[in-house]
Amino acid sequence: IIWSRHHTNIRWTLPAVCFVWQTAMIILFGVFVRYNGESDAHWAEFKMARNITSDIDNDFYFRYPSFQDVHVMIFVGFGFLMTFLKRYSFGGVGFNFLVAAFGLQWALLMQGWFHSLDYTDGMIKIGIENLINADFCVAGCLIAYGAVLGKVSPVQLMVMTLFGITLFAVEEYIISDLLHARDAGGSMVIHIFGGYYGLAISWVLYRPNLKESSQLQGSVYHSDVFAMIGTLFLWMFWPSFNSATCDHGDGQHRAAINTYLSLAATVLTTFAISSLSQKHGKLDMVHIQNSTLAGGVAVGTAAEFMLMPYGSLIVGFCCGLLSTLGYLYITPFMEKKLKIQDTCGIHNLHAMPGVIGGIVGAITAAAATESVYGKEGLVNTFDFTNEFKNRTPAVQGGYQAAAMCVAVCFGIGGGTLVGLILRMPIWGDVTDDNCFNDEFYWEVPDEEEIVVPVLEYNNHMTPNKHTDM
Amino acid sequence: IIWSRHHTNIRWTLPAVCFVWQTAMIILFGVFVRYNGESDAHWAEFKMARNITSDIDNDFYFRYPSFQDVHVMIFVGFGFLMTFLKRYSFGGVGFNFLVAAFGLQWALLMQGWFHSLDYTDGMIKIGIENLINADFCVAGCLIAYGAVLGKVSPVQLMVMTLFGITLFAVEEYIISDLLHARDAGGSMVIHIFGGYYGLAISWVLYRPNLKESSQLQGSVYHSDVFAMIGTLFLWMFWPSFNSATCDHGDGQHRAAINTYLSLAATVLTTFAISSLSQKHGKLDMVHIQNSTLAGGVAVGTAAEFMLMPYGSLIVGFCCGLLSTLGYLYITPFMEKKLKIQDTCGIHNLHAMPGVIGGIVGAITAAAATESVYGKEGLVNTFDFTNEFKNRTPAVQGGYQAAAMCVAVCFGIGGGTLVGLILRMPIWGDVTDDNCFNDEFYWEVPDEEEIVVPVLEYNNHMTPNKHTDM
Amino acid sequence: IIWSRHHTNIRWTLPAVCFVWQTAMIILFGVFVRYNGESDAHWAEFKMARNITSDIDNDFYFRYPSFQDVHVMIFVGFGFLMTFLKRYSFGGVGFNFLVAAFGLQWALLMQGWFHSLDYTDGMIKIGIENLINADFCVAGCLIAYGAVLGKVSPVQLMVMTLFGITLFAVEEYIISDLLHARDAGGSMVIHIFGGYYGLAISWVLYRPNLKESSQLQGSVYHSDVFAMIGTLFLWMFWPSFNSATCDHGDGQHRAAINTYLSLAATVLTTFAISSLSQKHGKLDMVHIQNSTLAGGVAVGTAAEFMLMPYGSLIVGFCCGLLSTLGYLYITPFMEKKLKIQDTCGIHNLHAMPGVIGGIVGAITAAAATESVYGKEGLVNTFDFTNEFKNRTPAVQGGYQAAAMCVAVCFGIGGGTLVGLILRMPIWGDVTDDNCFNDEFYWEVPDEEEIVVPVLEYNNHMTPNKHTDM
Repeated sequence: IIWSRHHTNIRWTLPAVCFVWQTAMIILFGVFVRYNGESDAHWAEFKMARNITSDIDNDFYFRYPSFQDVHVMIFVGFGFLMTFLKRYSFGGVGFNFLVAAFGLQWALLMQGWFHSLDYTDGMIKIGIENLINADFCVAGCLIAYGAVLGKVSPVQLMVMTLFGITLFAVEEYIISDLLHARDAGGSMVIHIFGGYYGLAISWVLYRPNLKESSQLQGSVYHSDVFAMIGTLFLWMFWPSFNSATCDHGDGQHRAAINTYLSLAATVLTTFAISSLSQKHGKLDMVHIQNSTLAGGVAVGTAAEFMLMPYGSLIVGFCCGLLSTLGYLYITPFMEKKLKIQDTCGIHNLHAMPGVIGGIVGAITAAAATESVYGKEGLVNTFDFTNEFKNRTPAVQGGYQAAAMCVAVCFGIGGGTLVGLILRMPIWGDVTDDNCFNDEFYWEVPDEEEIVVPVLEYNNHMTPNKHTDM
Repeated sequence: IIWSRHHTNIRWTLPAVCFVWQTAMIILFGVFVRYNGESDAHWAEFKMARNITSDIDNDFYFRYPSFQDVHVMIFVGFGFLMTFLKRYSFGGVGFNFLVAAFGLQWALLMQGWFHSLDYTDGMIKIGIENLINADFCVAGCLIAYGAVLGKVSPVQLMVMTLFGITLFAVEEYIISDLLHARDAGGSMVIHIFGGYYGLAISWVLYRPNLKESSQLQGSVYHSDVFAMIGTLFLWMFWPSFNSATCDHGDGQHRAAINTYLSLAATVLTTFAISSLSQKHGKLDMVHIQNSTLAGGVAVGTAAEFMLMPYGSLIVGFCCGLLSTLGYLYITPFMEKKLKIQDTCGIHNLHAMPGVIGGIVGAITAAAATESVYGKEGLVNTFDFTNEFKNRTPAVQGGYQAAAMCVAVCFGIGGGTLVGLILRMPIWGDVTDDNCFNDEFYWEVPDEEEIVVPVLEYNNHMTPNKHTDM
Repeated sequence: IIWSRHHTNIRWTLPAVCFVWQTAMIILFGVFVRYNGESDAHWAEFKMARNITSDIDNDFYFRYPSFQDVHVMIFVGFGFLMTFLKRYSFGGVGFNFLVAAFGLQWALLMQGWFHSLDYTDGMIKIGIENLINADFCVAGCLIAYGAVLGKVSPVQLMVMTLFGITLFAVEEYIISDLLHARDAGGSMVIHIFGGYYGLAISWVLYRPNLKESSQLQGSVYHSDVFAMIGTLFLWMFWPSFNSATCDHGDGQHRAAINTYLSLAATVLTTFAISSLSQKHGKLDMVHIQNSTLAGGVAVGTAAEFMLMPYGSLIVGFCCGLLSTLGYLYITPFMEKKLKIQDTCGIHNLHAMPGVIGGIVGAITAAAATESVYGKEGLVNTFDFTNEFKNRTPAVQGGYQAAAMCVAVCFGIGGGTLVGLILRMPIWGDVTDDNCFNDEFYWEVPDEEEIVVPVLEYNNHMTPNKHTDM
């Protein structure tokens, strides 16, 4: 008891980290961040200078509905997906909240320096698209959280997020600017990176005696229903995720359609494999909660491309199948042979479907033709402008493949390094036999109390319902 | 035990159905489905040809926010509304998910052939409005699911959905194209059809010994709270449902206002009747979860009409009253006398309010005048163009009434036929005494385990909270 | 038992209030309420008269996505935030639903008379902005509900709402029209008023023996997770709340950014103080559920101003800190010394952050300059037009401060008077020892039943899972 108290006491470290980092954010935002032309009060002049006739042409109206959907995915989607453990729901949804709220601030800065720097005054100019990208960046870290859910302290999560966001921003810059790869829904930038980042960390933090916590590493009936809230909000709003930062007009429109279709197909193959895998054909909630989402991941890179409706269905079909098989065979294999303990199975939901998405993106980019896209459509979709105006689809396919490798390397390399930092014995994490337990970081209500009033009540306080009405 | 295992084993049928149908979808989409002018990469040329100046005039921006709301209604709204049973929450939200994901694909095809076929190349051209209509179509089948909740196998649900979508598409074609009836929110097309379709199936599948499952045919405290998630998302987003496919501009605007008001009034009369019906005035969660939504159903057909704000309130007032009375008197009557077992009371929530909606639509259409709508407004609202340009409001009222009859006939007739198919003993459904129980189709976590860690924990693993802090 | 039955019997009062008030609404809407130019079928003519070229310039498309988010906040946000009590979840989400549905109708009328009256025909003309404002108005009353949660009857809540909406509309008219103060997110109009209104009522209704209900005045594990649904939807959609009625274009855009940032900072300081306050650094769900939202309240008044990103972070930083300290020190102090029992701690979440918001608004308004806003931007942001065209920022700051005083006075004065009305012994409220208990107003399912089927099931009805598969 004494050492456990000592170990998980985060009374000084967590507040210190929160205050220091939030103060740093205020100072850095003060020095570097301002509104952009569409969110600044000088909009009237901006509009006139660009000959914009209606306020509705402000980028806000193109992207705000999608932004809010993405926001729901980050906080309710990821948060509730992680409430499935019987006694770690507070940690699942609560730490997700903490980490995301910190991460988005740091992401606005990191991504801002790379993408939204106004060289005339050295300021980062932010608008609605920056908020979406910050949420995307956070998603990468939340994916990684899924691998270590229940096994790390909130302080470790904050450290993991600080480095994760930093690595993400560099990786994203290389992929989208230097390689000029397209990745609308972030199959590579977000899901491959986040997935391998989390798996690498979990590998470094391997807990040999984790089975001593096995009685808490499972769900109860209602925690599985809570997790379905997360699943469904992720599933429903994924079209917004993949289309949020696409080109105005057909780009956003097509990305939403492709994602909608891919996800629908995934559901059917997930149910099929889940049922096939049990002697009596019973369905497993773990598969339904997770693998149904793999199609959204895998269609991310190519979401804006002319994937065609049937192409989206094929991607979804394969992903539901592979992701569910992953839960059945790859996760146990990874745990036993590779010493990678992956609480939420992010390898099946993010890493592997992300790789599929990257491959689909590379192939469909390489196969793009002017007859399918139209002359202007091809240029718009792949942004073959300025220094990239002579790039051909075939070459683009090569760069897409290269981008995928960059994402894998950043994930594994970054995760390994950060994992080593997190092994330092100062972060307040629990021992192997106390994982998946909210009691170490949260004031948890006494559960027995619920019995008392009900019994007492039925006997003494009110008339008996059945005889009395 | 042995026969029960035999009966509910869906290990081969469910995967087979999922794989076969998903494969069929891929093939049919490959042959028939392409992007439409607003979601295709040729949008730049499309825009120029139609003299569209801004990307914001893409239909995507008129309808996407409403689409996402409708999507939430289908998956979270219907799904969580059906989690109210104490031990069928997995089946409620999970099978809803499966059925909707399959149904929307089939709906895109069926509705596409009737409404979005491009005769120049024989292809269905899809855009955001098709996605909304597919979700609508699915809603009809999910309504029907409500009548048989807990009593059918997932394979039966898939069959029910396949035929339901097919019937829906034909019915919708007759109502909206041949009769040229208006039905913005689908009171007739969706709710009457779906309601009677489900009731007829439930009638054919009558279970004489269902009372042997009565200990599971009820809620527990937290399952009722879960169901309120469904109720509220349906209630809040119903304005989007009724306005999603209305005319751009005033049409969508007015439909949202009418629905908002109607639903508000429904809540008050539902609470009133629910309280009145109990000796001590206690409220019944079944009424609050369901009858509060009836106003959204009933205002569906006339949502786009000049119903006037007070007209919407009157519709809502009547529906809350009638729907709650339905739960109190009609549902028990139907179960005892008509042998119709209606788990969720869809007769009170969908069928009956749908009929009210159809009647309101017919009357208000017949009463429409140019002074109220304006000359152009009347033509736009009722789409009195092309071959219908000489139709008068009075005649329109007659066609609206006819449409209602079509919906009732398709629901009852189709449901009876499909019910007969579902009586075949090959679908893996449970016996009468095993209804409303997730254990037959789902891996359900052992509930006792929750007690173990809590007790053990309090005694051994951590310091006592009360003495220690 | 006998008197308790007598007291809480609302079988006649609740239905009577619902029917009378709903009927009154129908009559008043019939006499007074019509569609406005953008929701009326005459839109085609309206458009032509104003030279509007595209339907997308209908106000509906500027505000509908934000409206739906606000709607979710009112019904799911406030509703689920109040499900945290172990045995008052039905009352929390259910009465919230009832009160909001009634309140929004009365708000449309009251606000309509003050703001949307068409003097040519004496009619209130409503559109999407009226719906948002009605939801805002309701928010004030729901905040007040938080103070008396579990201690009042639904009839008292209806009375409280009737008067609350009335007072709100007058207060809003004084603040926004007479004083011409700006208050985009309603820090003053909604949160200060609603907060002090509820606290004053709770003070008048002081229950000296409330500790006899203390065994029910707490949460259980899953009720805390339910409450997080409310928290997160409020947190995520707060940018929509603060931007919903802002100026088209940069106004809405900037308000969303400011709110997003402020809320992010609040999360970090809330976690920090919550952890600091416990001996072992454990987090308290009460803080996480509530104080994380304070930043959204406090940035409300100044949301549309050029607060700058770092300014928003500073506001959020301070609010998370103060609000959490409020839960730790001010709430117990108020309960013991001031006899104000505040169930949800609305003083910490609404009243105090509202005051901070009012102060921030006054200071930043007074400090506004043409160089920061631009000439046109300054006029647009503060609406320095017509009779206010000569007002300077400094003077505006003074009026902002005056507005804050008006809100405080209306809250405290109105709450005290309404509290006296609610002390009449006719409203069916429970005694001090029966608070926080759903059983008095709701049919609550017997909880024991859940044990029976599970045990019985495992022993008799199905094969044992572990040995059988």
